[in-house]
Amino acid sequence: MILVVTLNPALDVTHHVEQADWAGVNRPHAVLTRPGGKGVNVARVLLALGTDVLVTGLAGGAAGDAVRAGLEAAGVPADLTPIAAETRRTFAVVDTGRGQTGLFNEPGPPVSAAEFARFRDQFRAAAPGSAAVVLTGSLPRGLPDSCYAELIRLAGDAPVILDTDGPALRDGAAARPAILKPNLAELEAITGRSLRAGGEADPSLDDVRAAARELISQGAGAVVVTLGADGLLAETGEGSWLAAPPGPEPGNPTGAGDATVAGLARGLATGQDWPERLRHATALGTAAVAAPVAGEFSPERYRELLPAIRVRPCDQPGGRR
Amino acid sequence: MILVVTLNPALDVTHHVEQADWAGVNRPHAVLTRPGGKGVNVARVLLALGTDVLVTGLAGGAAGDAVRAGLEAAGVPADLTPIAAETRRTFAVVDTGRGQTGLFNEPGPPVSAAEFARFRDQFRAAAPGSAAVVLTGSLPRGLPDSCYAELIRLAGDAPVILDTDGPALRDGAAARPAILKPNLAELEAITGRSLRAGGEADPSLDDVRAAARELISQGAGAVVVTLGADGLLAETGEGSWLAAPPGPEPGNPTGAGDATVAGLARGLATGQDWPERLRHATALGTAAVAAPVAGEFSPERYRELLPAIRVRPCDQPGGRR
Repeated sequence: MILVVTLNPALDVTHHVEQADWAGVNRPHAVLTRPGGKGVNVARVLLALGTDVLVTGLAGGAAGDAVRAGLEAAGVPADLTPIAAETRRTFAVVDTGRGQTGLFNEPGPPVSAAEFARFRDQFRAAAPGSAAVVLTGSLPRGLPDSCYAELIRLAGDAPVILDTDGPALRDGAAARPAILKPNLAELEAITGRSLRAGGEADPSLDDVRAAARELISQGAGAVVVTLGADGLLAETGEGSWLAAPPGPEPGNPTGAGDATVAGLARGLATGQDWPERLRHATALGTAAVAAPVAGEFSPERYRELLPAIRVRPCDQPGGRR
Repeated sequence: MILVVTLNPALDVTHHVEQADWAGVNRPHAVLTRPGGKGVNVARVLLALGTDVLVTGLAGGAAGDAVRAGLEAAGVPADLTPIAAETRRTFAVVDTGRGQTGLFNEPGPPVSAAEFARFRDQFRAAAPGSAAVVLTGSLPRGLPDSCYAELIRLAGDAPVILDTDGPALRDGAAARPAILKPNLAELEAITGRSLRAGGEADPSLDDVRAAARELISQGAGAVVVTLGADGLLAETGEGSWLAAPPGPEPGNPTGAGDATVAGLARGLATGQDWPERLRHATALGTAAVAAPVAGEFSPERYRELLPAIRVRPCDQPGGRR
């Protein structure tokens, strides 16, 4: 079983309107409500792959109840610790006429030390027996940056993959997770190196590798950097690889990183070797771009992509730089 | 006790953003969530006036639970019949930089005949002993246009005020409610008469009175037409009056009609004579414009306005036209 922790899940509400009037009254022709947040996306992908999962984390108020009900309706096993404050919502207005989407993300709820302590007790009981633990997403208000580091230590022998950013990522690295999964911008921010994230030019692979190794020197077992359409770069104790899809995938990149994390977690849980693990993680991330909704992927595209993913070692035989 | 029926309440969610990006990600600096819908607004005004109220109606799902919790937090006594489907949300994006608000209203939930039958049993038990009954707002999907008419008949001796539109208003008139409260556009639509609603010119008072009398001839005990900033026109069995505020009130007219209904219901319940009832209803509607949020009114402005409202009979002494 893979334990997926989502400390700051969301109730995602999406309204489809033909031509939004931002200064008037609109009657959406379609309304979708579903549990969201990175942990929920990871769990849905794992479940679709036939992997046992349990979603834990924090949820409160009516939005928290709606998250629980939505997970149950989707067949996602979950045991979320109650909190007093209201779980956040995200609100998306999809303007089908203009072909644009406005997203409104509420801040996370405040969480008390006593509430986090209750979650921690539950985590301490469940995590050490898990095949892998996924810690992903932002932290709600009131939790210290160190709380992912604390959970990594409590996970015992269970290998942990951490996908977050900022100080929580830095603190987490020192707690020796099996895998850190930053994207380029997160890696840039945490190491203070210029990797040209978001720029026109491709980042220098040497620079990205050096930044990843910096996180390994701080304690991470491996660092897998998502490079968008260019795939993944993995810096591990067993070698370094670049895994790339055959070409750019048209679609919606939201949630692609979460599908990648699901692939890495599954490989970690089953003991896949790194090249195979990266092949699956890259194929899943790319097949998620082909699916319209975050937390889903196209199974057909996933199967098509698997043999087409190129995984090549970054180093010459005989030595790492 | 005044019984307020809200068959289609809403969970009102409001996001305040500085400059909305309709094609990007926004982080609202303020998020407000509260129970909404016309019945809830009426009940809140009545409660603020010190009147005993009970809110009944239909609520389901997590949004329904949030409506119940919000009413409890606001001290509004409520007993909402559960339904399987999810209570609707309204979502408002207040763009504080541009000074405009976009409102996104979800459709109401589907309601089954069995669910409405459960509500009807509860209503039949509670309504006849009430000092007045308020039926207000749109109908959720699945309920026939005749259901307000059915409730009016079940209310027995309790006087009923009905505020709705379209076929539900027409059917309701025939069931002999004590008061119908259309606005000009609703009166125009239901009678098929051109009253210049929403136009530049003021409507002819004679035309409005004739349209109101048409609804009386169909069964309504009295018709009170809200004329926006011009106040109220009442066509009753005891006479006809025009009640006008001293001048235009700056502010937010959303919810002003609901405050007017609260004033009319309170006058109905306490047996106020028509001129006094109209004075209070007009002052409340105007004082609601002075409050920023629907369902609230400025008590100071209400007290200031009461002596300033002009209530004059429409007919010459000695005869009605």
